[in-house]
Amino acid sequence: MKKHIAVMAGDGIGPEIVGQALRVLDAAARKFNHEFSTEHVLIGGIAIDETGSPLPEATVEACRKADAVLLGAVGGPKWDTIAPEIRPEKGLLGIRKALGLFANLRPARLFPELSGACLLRKDIVDKGLDVMVVRELTGGIYFGKPAGVEVRGGKRTGFNTMIYDEDEIRRIAHIAFKAAMKRRKKVCSVDKANVLDVSRLWREVVIEVSKEYPEVSLSHMYVDNAAMQLVRDPSQFDVIVTSNLFGDILSDEAAVITGSIGMLASASLGSEYAGLYEPIHGSAPDIAGQNKANPLATILSVSMMLLHEFDLEKEALCIENAVRKTLQDGFRTGDIMEEGKTLCNTIEITDKVIERL
Amino acid sequence: MKKHIAVMAGDGIGPEIVGQALRVLDAAARKFNHEFSTEHVLIGGIAIDETGSPLPEATVEACRKADAVLLGAVGGPKWDTIAPEIRPEKGLLGIRKALGLFANLRPARLFPELSGACLLRKDIVDKGLDVMVVRELTGGIYFGKPAGVEVRGGKRTGFNTMIYDEDEIRRIAHIAFKAAMKRRKKVCSVDKANVLDVSRLWREVVIEVSKEYPEVSLSHMYVDNAAMQLVRDPSQFDVIVTSNLFGDILSDEAAVITGSIGMLASASLGSEYAGLYEPIHGSAPDIAGQNKANPLATILSVSMMLLHEFDLEKEALCIENAVRKTLQDGFRTGDIMEEGKTLCNTIEITDKVIERL
Ligand SMILES: CC(C)[C@H](C(=O)O)[C@@H](O)C(=O)O
Ligand SMILES: CC(C)[C@H](C(=O)O)[C@@H](O)C(=O)O
Repeated sequence: MKKHIAVMAGDGIGPEIVGQALRVLDAAARKFNHEFSTEHVLIGGIAIDETGSPLPEATVEACRKADAVLLGAVGGPKWDTIAPEIRPEKGLLGIRKALGLFANLRPARLFPELSGACLLRKDIVDKGLDVMVVRELTGGIYFGKPAGVEVRGGKRTGFNTMIYDEDEIRRIAHIAFKAAMKRRKKVCSVDKANVLDVSRLWREVVIEVSKEYPEVSLSHMYVDNAAMQLVRDPSQFDVIVTSNLFGDILSDEAAVITGSIGMLASASLGSEYAGLYEPIHGSAPDIAGQNKANPLATILSVSMMLLHEFDLEKEALCIENAVRKTLQDGFRTGDIMEEGKTLCNTIEITDKVIERL
Repeated sequence: MKKHIAVMAGDGIGPEIVGQALRVLDAAARKFNHEFSTEHVLIGGIAIDETGSPLPEATVEACRKADAVLLGAVGGPKWDTIAPEIRPEKGLLGIRKALGLFANLRPARLFPELSGACLLRKDIVDKGLDVMVVRELTGGIYFGKPAGVEVRGGKRTGFNTMIYDEDEIRRIAHIAFKAAMKRRKKVCSVDKANVLDVSRLWREVVIEVSKEYPEVSLSHMYVDNAAMQLVRDPSQFDVIVTSNLFGDILSDEAAVITGSIGMLASASLGSEYAGLYEPIHGSAPDIAGQNKANPLATILSVSMMLLHEFDLEKEALCIENAVRKTLQDGFRTGDIMEEGKTLCNTIEITDKVIERL
């Protein structure tokens, strides 16, 4: 197979972890006889520094033409005081919109080798934790109009609009039900339908879509309760489907509970263009350039890309297993280090993964 | 002191727990020579059943005249399928608005006697957990206009408006900084200023207000990160101030982490009318009428009322200490039961508290 990948390394530890993940991709390509070409393009803070924009037009063009997009991380204190219109995050929001990446798949799971890192009480952890948050990514309050800050009646007033139409809800619901079909066949739709009109429509449309998936059981939960239940008993969840803002909050909460966000990958999918794959952690400017960062989430993002984008199941599993084996053999980066294990730097742990491919 | 209290027992376990809390109030009144008269009024499901409205005008009138309001809980499956405009929750939202209760104080703390119930890993719990969430309660997306579901361009479309003006932000910020002055002098303001315009104004105004409280240290956190940090290390927080929706989510998350939401009280304060005091837990219809519910959060709500509304510090502390002593002496309701403790029903545990007043 021959594929072309647009690579946005971004800021902070982005270049290091992406660099290592591409080494793994290369090794997998050699092993399975594929050809992956890559093209590095700018996003985020580095794009601001070099072009004045967090999302240069050339980046959008390259991503639109690519067969898949790999992202490191964006942002850092250097750009925290920059004008809001051109902050690094705008690059992220912009590329999601430009590629129509309406579905963000964020699996939060606990690697058995790292269960000691889980933040919850042992008896809760022991019940298991393997949640897939399906977050709507191009609509809702993130992009709703009208939005702004203006003076009304002599007072500064800020406002945003949380808005969804039935088509937007329907397509993300389909993604969630399809994901559930490949998993434990349970979807929990999270909203705030006891207060928000937009949530009432959300619930209505999700119920309509559920009719097409009679094998999947559907439940509904208010967002405040979901924030509680994720801590109280995450084992009750299989797939959670929710709006952009609620998904932002709940996917991060679900991820942190595992205690090892340095291990979690994500995929953002659309329909017109290729999907974007990235680790869920941030750009960690404090350790950037020190060869200390954990590249495993980015390596697992490459595995997700092979599976979801190119249907290369064997290859994806091979990378995932190599990562598991690396953990089993006791190798750890600093963020997941435990007593009795072997501390590795970014390059060393990648070497271990490649040896185990 | 002579005070008049409007009591809304509400639905489910509401009447039981409120009934017992009023027994404690009576006992405290006798001990300290006060006179508290009470007036029972309807809200929620029972109000719908008896009057057709979740918030009858008579209830609003009685609350507006009262020196304090005590609430049990509202809602239950019986009213889940009722028209959205008259659902039990509308009673809750309505009374908040009618009394101008713009500040919701939700302390989440761990009683040392119940630290085994905490959902987090022991080493995290051991660092402590005593967070006060100050949630804005009469603005934001809960009440913002325009809101609705309508057909636009042939598609059903749902929308709500998240909106704050500077005065609304300023007054809730003052409440938070004042609360912090009586605590550990730290305020963390939670928003989503990297995405939402309304959050940018929120942050701006909170910073302005902070200038009047030079002793209080102010930090800012995005809501997704806050949802993570509450699980990762709640000991870092003293006072969290945030908007209505974010506060709904984060205060519930903070509460559940303690593992004993049956113990947590809350206060909702305005400026024109008296404050409203209530347990944070729900109406628990599954155990209603069985003399099983935990009344301690409602009893502690009475204590909060004596302190915040009537400035009766000694009396408030006396009730709180009686609750603590009851726990120390090993008495527990079902929800907080542990091996080796004495199981009590709703009335029995209240007896124990009254004996210890
Ligand atoms: C950086 C920010 C705009 C972004 C979001 O809120 O979507 C991030 O939190 C995420 O979840 O990818
Ligand atoms: C019942 C609901 C309307 C309410 C809210 O969201 O405010 C509840 O969750 C709360 O926190 O008091």
